[in-house]
Amino acid sequence: MSKKNPDKLLVFALGGVGEIGKNMYVIQYANDIVVVDAGLKFPEEDMLGIDIVIPDISYLLENRDKVKGILITHGHEDHIGGLSYVLKQLNVPVYGTKLTLGLIESKLKEAGLLGETKRIVIDADSVVELGTIQASFFKTNHSIPDSVGVALDTPEGTIVHTGDFKFDYTPVNEQYADLQRMAEIGRRGVLALLSDSTNAERPGYTPSEKNVGEGLEDIFHKSAQRVVVATFASNVHRIQQVINAAIATNRYIAVVGRSMVNVVSIAADLGYLDIPEGMIIEPEEVNKLAADRVVILCTGSQGEPMSALTRMARSTHRKVDILPGDTVIIAATPIPGNERYVGRTVDELFRLGANVIYGPGSVPGVHVSGHGSQEELKLMLNIIKPKYFIPIHGEYRMLRQHAQLGEAVGIDRSHIFVIDNGETVEFQGGIGRKGSKVQAGNVLIDGLGVGDVGNIVLRDRKLLSQDGILVVVVTLSKQDGGSIVSGPDIISRGFVYVRESEGLLDEANKIVSSTLNKLMHDKVNEWASLKTNVKDALGRFLYEQTRRRPMILPIIMEV
Amino acid sequence: MSKKNPDKLLVFALGGVGEIGKNMYVIQYANDIVVVDAGLKFPEEDMLGIDIVIPDISYLLENRDKVKGILITHGHEDHIGGLSYVLKQLNVPVYGTKLTLGLIESKLKEAGLLGETKRIVIDADSVVELGTIQASFFKTNHSIPDSVGVALDTPEGTIVHTGDFKFDYTPVNEQYADLQRMAEIGRRGVLALLSDSTNAERPGYTPSEKNVGEGLEDIFHKSAQRVVVATFASNVHRIQQVINAAIATNRYIAVVGRSMVNVVSIAADLGYLDIPEGMIIEPEEVNKLAADRVVILCTGSQGEPMSALTRMARSTHRKVDILPGDTVIIAATPIPGNERYVGRTVDELFRLGANVIYGPGSVPGVHVSGHGSQEELKLMLNIIKPKYFIPIHGEYRMLRQHAQLGEAVGIDRSHIFVIDNGETVEFQGGIGRKGSKVQAGNVLIDGLGVGDVGNIVLRDRKLLSQDGILVVVVTLSKQDGGSIVSGPDIISRGFVYVRESEGLLDEANKIVSSTLNKLMHDKVNEWASLKTNVKDALGRFLYEQTRRRPMILPIIMEV
Repeated sequence: MSKKNPDKLLVFALGGVGEIGKNMYVIQYANDIVVVDAGLKFPEEDMLGIDIVIPDISYLLENRDKVKGILITHGHEDHIGGLSYVLKQLNVPVYGTKLTLGLIESKLKEAGLLGETKRIVIDADSVVELGTIQASFFKTNHSIPDSVGVALDTPEGTIVHTGDFKFDYTPVNEQYADLQRMAEIGRRGVLALLSDSTNAERPGYTPSEKNVGEGLEDIFHKSAQRVVVATFASNVHRIQQVINAAIATNRYIAVVGRSMVNVVSIAADLGYLDIPEGMIIEPEEVNKLAADRVVILCTGSQGEPMSALTRMARSTHRKVDILPGDTVIIAATPIPGNERYVGRTVDELFRLGANVIYGPGSVPGVHVSGHGSQEELKLMLNIIKPKYFIPIHGEYRMLRQHAQLGEAVGIDRSHIFVIDNGETVEFQGGIGRKGSKVQAGNVLIDGLGVGDVGNIVLRDRKLLSQDGILVVVVTLSKQDGGSIVSGPDIISRGFVYVRESEGLLDEANKIVSSTLNKLMHDKVNEWASLKTNVKDALGRFLYEQTRRRPMILPIIMEV
Repeated sequence: MSKKNPDKLLVFALGGVGEIGKNMYVIQYANDIVVVDAGLKFPEEDMLGIDIVIPDISYLLENRDKVKGILITHGHEDHIGGLSYVLKQLNVPVYGTKLTLGLIESKLKEAGLLGETKRIVIDADSVVELGTIQASFFKTNHSIPDSVGVALDTPEGTIVHTGDFKFDYTPVNEQYADLQRMAEIGRRGVLALLSDSTNAERPGYTPSEKNVGEGLEDIFHKSAQRVVVATFASNVHRIQQVINAAIATNRYIAVVGRSMVNVVSIAADLGYLDIPEGMIIEPEEVNKLAADRVVILCTGSQGEPMSALTRMARSTHRKVDILPGDTVIIAATPIPGNERYVGRTVDELFRLGANVIYGPGSVPGVHVSGHGSQEELKLMLNIIKPKYFIPIHGEYRMLRQHAQLGEAVGIDRSHIFVIDNGETVEFQGGIGRKGSKVQAGNVLIDGLGVGDVGNIVLRDRKLLSQDGILVVVVTLSKQDGGSIVSGPDIISRGFVYVRESEGLLDEANKIVSSTLNKLMHDKVNEWASLKTNVKDALGRFLYEQTRRRPMILPIIMEV
């Protein structure tokens, strides 16, 4: 496509639209491709057994010589979590701010890719030349420091990608969103804006992260015992505020949970956390201190089964117990789909006698979102003043709500493109239109397997999960016109509790025998036909008896 | 227990505490047992393949001669959905108000139990003698008409069970909660209150259902095309308000979805819905009318996969299509766990070009809860003024929050019992204490099977759903010291996409062969040992290669 029309500008997503997660946006002008972000997504509820999901990058691999680099807007998993998988197949330079690269490097080290990956630190004043495309950046506020938006100047015009953002007028680290630069970019003229739609359904403004600091300090003051704070490991601002509240209330901090330890260490090393000497204690030391001198900062705010807080709640954590009278703060809201897990954890903490601060009653006291609400999204649209608008980073309904906000601030409906992954928007001569589709989709990662689980495997897992499986083993003789030599033996897993269903399985056995005997009497002896008939007869019988449809696997042997 | 202490009063739950759903409460004095409600629960996320969950009623079956009757507080599934299963095993009289019994009867008819079940209609003025226990009732407000609370006078004192309730001072049907009777019961003295904890986490007051009527009428007015309203079928008040808004905007109503048709028919027949003659049209007639003359009232507010709205959203409904410009109102909030389903449905409706009104931005405009918030729960505690308090109907965290409200209104902490299912509270001589436990738990219903799926089956389904299954079939000869006659053949389901993993499966085959050959060479020939060794060797190999742990089923035959 790009060969036929070498002077077109293409903008599309390989991930991140119509979903929350696996963000990857592509800007291509002629032979220059710039990628923004390379994230992962957590599996949907129907992706059974899948660990993570990354974007299908076939398009980039087919055009590998054109890819000039990957710009990373910030260090969240949905923006950097797919990077190792991408770089394994496509060794291109990676650009990110200091903290972002710090987090990426720890991933690349694990994947054995650190040596061979070219990493370029940028800051908000950097300008990066990527063929005919020039990238510059602007500071934004988000729930992780060092987040930036990107302006990509191309021969067709400027494309602005906001990254994830909110407008926090009182940021914790005093790193203000660069409204002046955004205004300057807007003044020069922007062809198209790609903007974060996460909170496009939410009216008003998202409160400042500073609110949380006040809420935390208040709770720390009132607690006569230990305080446990669970939050997202990557929320360095929040972590700083936990530290500040601990200082104010004369408490030490134990950091618990692998990713929390990792982020605190990276952020402190790179100067993004200000921690007084001697304030951090080992989890083992918690019990040696008076209860009102202790804060435990941990992972598990989503009720993840293996996380630190979940283990504490179940009394299976090796180092930290929850004691009656402890205060536990869940400084996060559940991501849709996690509500039940979080609820279970809260229940267990209450059972241990903890005072648990969680849920809607506690927000914005102990949590605020990192994404801008409707009024902030309108501010971004107003300050960038784009000719075209492409809402990104959100489920379809969020993109649509964001599109409506675009119309509300005066962008013509025909200049707003709500796109699916792989659906291109082409710009030529200042005119934008929807173009053709490039390959895009989900690559499922299950253990070490990348892409070896597809729809057939998932369909089978779904079937198996609902009603289990029956394996029917029978041996037929070749000689005497085909009689049953041994079996049928029926082995079931996940179907019924066998000891209570002997009658049913005996009956099933007879159905298989009589089906086979009848077929052999009728001289039907092609294997496929025998198998199909056994499957059908047994399936029908079991459905009548149980209203269940287990998978049936007939194994017919001949001797 | 009751035999040794014939003069004790026992209060416990067989379902409904530590969970939302399968409500069943038991009040026993000596040889008289009264059951309040018999509900179902929808399966938890780890109950794979299960359709519904009902209470374990072993205790009632062991004491079947003592059970005097089942009182039903209102007609919601979590209070009546287990009734058919209970009555099949325990034929006792059922007491309920007119609408409640109407809904029950439609269930009993399906289960073939209508003829043999004694049903007694009560109203708020009824008094029912159940051995030494006397039941009277009081009207409450809830999201279904004809809801009542129950006062049970026993020789040990009065137990009050609120049922599900809110205080709606402007109820849609002008059936006000009977504050006078509650006050009178409280004045006479109440030993213990069992009160609904669903919204114990929510501060303030729950808005009146009337708010929704105004919200609906406003949207109906503004819509130039058809309006689709999805809500809970049982919410007869809401349905009446849809009818009223349709009258006000000169629209006809098509009722779509099995349970919606069923409830509208029962409620209209019994006089709980006021529908003008000729207002209800068949779904087939929708397309014959001008778009601004039509309302479609349907099920599917939870995004349930087979519901009417979900089918419309996926364009698979046989009778109703969503057209661009239609307005769809989801007049409900997602039950925890259903958020993703609802989100998916909203996405699909947006894709069809509908204007969708849903989510937090739309509430309380188009939805309010049927359960009282904290201030209403305090009002109930204040008006009933119980000596003891047992929060019911909620997850553990909700019961705990409700217990805190009890303390806040002045009930002594030692007089508040947060119980688990099966955990009894005993009252004797005016003193309450936690007693011993009776059998309680979940009975899982999968298809026609009641209780034939237990932990082992669920564990297998979980394993199968994560990594699938490999069946290894091999035939050994008995004669020549045991050599492989045929196989090994490996059949996998839900493990890997076979065509892309031939190498892996070939290698797996070799592992099985070499394991068996080595064992036979070492003269190991007990089946159990052969199977275990094959399982272990293959499992180890596959985990190394894939980091997955599929179920492995070795089938070893001898000829």
